[in-house]
Amino acid sequence: MENSNEQNPLNNQTKASLPIGIFDSGVGGLTVYRALHNRLPNEHFIYLGDTARVPYGTKSLATVERYAIENAEFLASHGIKILVVACNTASALALPKIREKIGIDVVGVIGPGARKAVAMTRDRQNETNQKIAVIATEATVSSNAYALSIHQAEETAVVYQTACPLFVPLAEENWTKEPETVSIAKKYLEKIKEFQPDALVLGCTHYPILREVIQQTVGENVTLIDSGEACAEEVEQLLDFKELKNPQKIEGERTLCDDLDHFYVTDAAERFARVAERFLGSQPAKLEAIELY
Amino acid sequence: MENSNEQNPLNNQTKASLPIGIFDSGVGGLTVYRALHNRLPNEHFIYLGDTARVPYGTKSLATVERYAIENAEFLASHGIKILVVACNTASALALPKIREKIGIDVVGVIGPGARKAVAMTRDRQNETNQKIAVIATEATVSSNAYALSIHQAEETAVVYQTACPLFVPLAEENWTKEPETVSIAKKYLEKIKEFQPDALVLGCTHYPILREVIQQTVGENVTLIDSGEACAEEVEQLLDFKELKNPQKIEGERTLCDDLDHFYVTDAAERFARVAERFLGSQPAKLEAIELY
Repeated sequence: MENSNEQNPLNNQTKASLPIGIFDSGVGGLTVYRALHNRLPNEHFIYLGDTARVPYGTKSLATVERYAIENAEFLASHGIKILVVACNTASALALPKIREKIGIDVVGVIGPGARKAVAMTRDRQNETNQKIAVIATEATVSSNAYALSIHQAEETAVVYQTACPLFVPLAEENWTKEPETVSIAKKYLEKIKEFQPDALVLGCTHYPILREVIQQTVGENVTLIDSGEACAEEVEQLLDFKELKNPQKIEGERTLCDDLDHFYVTDAAERFARVAERFLGSQPAKLEAIELY
Repeated sequence: MENSNEQNPLNNQTKASLPIGIFDSGVGGLTVYRALHNRLPNEHFIYLGDTARVPYGTKSLATVERYAIENAEFLASHGIKILVVACNTASALALPKIREKIGIDVVGVIGPGARKAVAMTRDRQNETNQKIAVIATEATVSSNAYALSIHQAEETAVVYQTACPLFVPLAEENWTKEPETVSIAKKYLEKIKEFQPDALVLGCTHYPILREVIQQTVGENVTLIDSGEACAEEVEQLLDFKELKNPQKIEGERTLCDDLDHFYVTDAAERFARVAERFLGSQPAKLEAIELY
C-alpha cells in the first residue's frame, strides 16, 4: 500500500473492480468517455451528464463549484475507484473543492491537456520559446487555468487563449464539414493562426468533434492536443501506479455505449441519446434520468 | 370590480402602481422587456433572468415547469401587478402550472404571437388557407404550443414549424450581419421559404436580434411576427381592461435599463450586463445577482 493514499477502506482488489466515474455538464464529456473506453477496454464506466444545468461555460465560479460537487457526490455514492472530471469548465474552476469533498482520486482535463501540450512541443524548441494556443469556453478562458497549468509545466512557454462560443452548438448540430463551420472557424482562429503556435489545445470537450476543420484552419504544422485523450492517458498511468486496473478481463469485444457502462443524465434523456449517437455512433444501452437536487 | 378577477386584496389604485414582473431563462427576454418598455413608458419593471439554469429550450417539461414556478414565485413575492413570461419555452410548457400557483394575471408570449400571426394574415386569405410558419427552440417546437394556439384562433390555418438552435448563440455573439449568419439562416429557413408562408413567427426571444437577416432570407412578402411585441400589446390591453396602468406619470424621458427598472439574475451578472448592452444599447442601472433555490 506504499504507493497509495488510502482514503477507502476497501481492499485494493475489490476497489480495482469498481467502475470509473465520469461527469460532464452534458454531452461533451462523451469524447472523454470515448478516449477512456478505447484506452481501457477492461474498465466499466459510470457517466453523469448534468443536462438539467448545462452549459457551465457561461456560469460563475460559485455556481460551477456547487454543481460539480453535487455531481461528484452522486458518482462517489455509487462506488467508483477514480473520478474523471470531463468538463473543462468544472476542471478549471472546481477541482480543489471536489478534492476537498470526496475521498477518491480526481483527474481533470486541464492539467493533462496542458502537460501534454508542453511535452509535445518541447522538442520543437529551437532558439525560441514554446508557443501554445488554447481554445475553450468563456469561463475556462477567464479562469486562466490552462495558462497556469502550462506555466507550471514550462515557465517560459508563451500562451494565447481565446473563446469559441459557437463551436459547441455547431458540434451538437453535427455540422462538422459545413461551409458555415469552416468560415466561423476561420474567424475564431484568425488570431491564433497569426500567433503561429506549436500546439493548439482543444480546451472544451465538444471541440474534438470539429477537429478536422480546426486542423485545416490552423494548418498541419500545429499539433492539436485533445485534453480528453491526454486525460485518458493520465488516468491509465494513475491506475497502473495504484494497481487499480480491473483484474477481471472482459470477454468478447467491447463497444462504446454497451451495457457494461451506465449513463445518467439530470434531464432530457432522449436528446442526450440523440447527440450521443451523433458523437459516438451509438446510443447508450443503459441510460437513466435522475434528479440531483 | 366587475371586470376584474380579484385575487389580490390590494385596492386597484395601489395595485396599479406596482411594477410589471418579467422572467426569462436568461437574456433573450430583454427583447420582450424592450417591447413592453417602449409601449408602456409609465410602468416600472422587475426582470428576472434565470442565467444559472439557461437554456430552457433543450430541457424537459418537468424541469422547465419547476424552474418557471420558482421564477414566478420570486417575482410575485416582490409585489407585481402582472406577470409576463417572456421565455417562449416556459410559455409553451409551464403556463398552466404557473397560473395554478400564483394569484396574479399571467401573460405568455406564445398565445399573443399566435393570435397576432392569425390576425395579420387574415386579410391575405384569398381562396387558400392562411399559412403560418414558426421558428423556435427544440422544446417549443416539440411542445406544439404555437400550432395549438394558432389553430385555436383559426382552425383552417396551415402551420409549419422548425427549430433553429444556432440562432441563439449567433444572437448572443451579436453576429447580426455576418456572412456565416446569412448562410446558416438560408440553411435553417430553406423549407420555410418553400412553404411560402404568409407570416413567420419569431418564436424565441433571441430571434428579433436577427430579424433583418431572417427577413432577407424569407423575402419581404413574409410578415415577421415578433412574439414579444405581440405580448406587449396584449399586456397593454389587459392593463387597460383592468384599469391597472400606473396612475403616476413618470417625469422626464425614460430610457431602457434606467434606474426605475430592477434586474435580477441567478448567476453571472457581468455577462448578462454585457449581452444586455449588445441587445439594448445600455447596461441595467440596477442589476443584482440572487440565489433562487
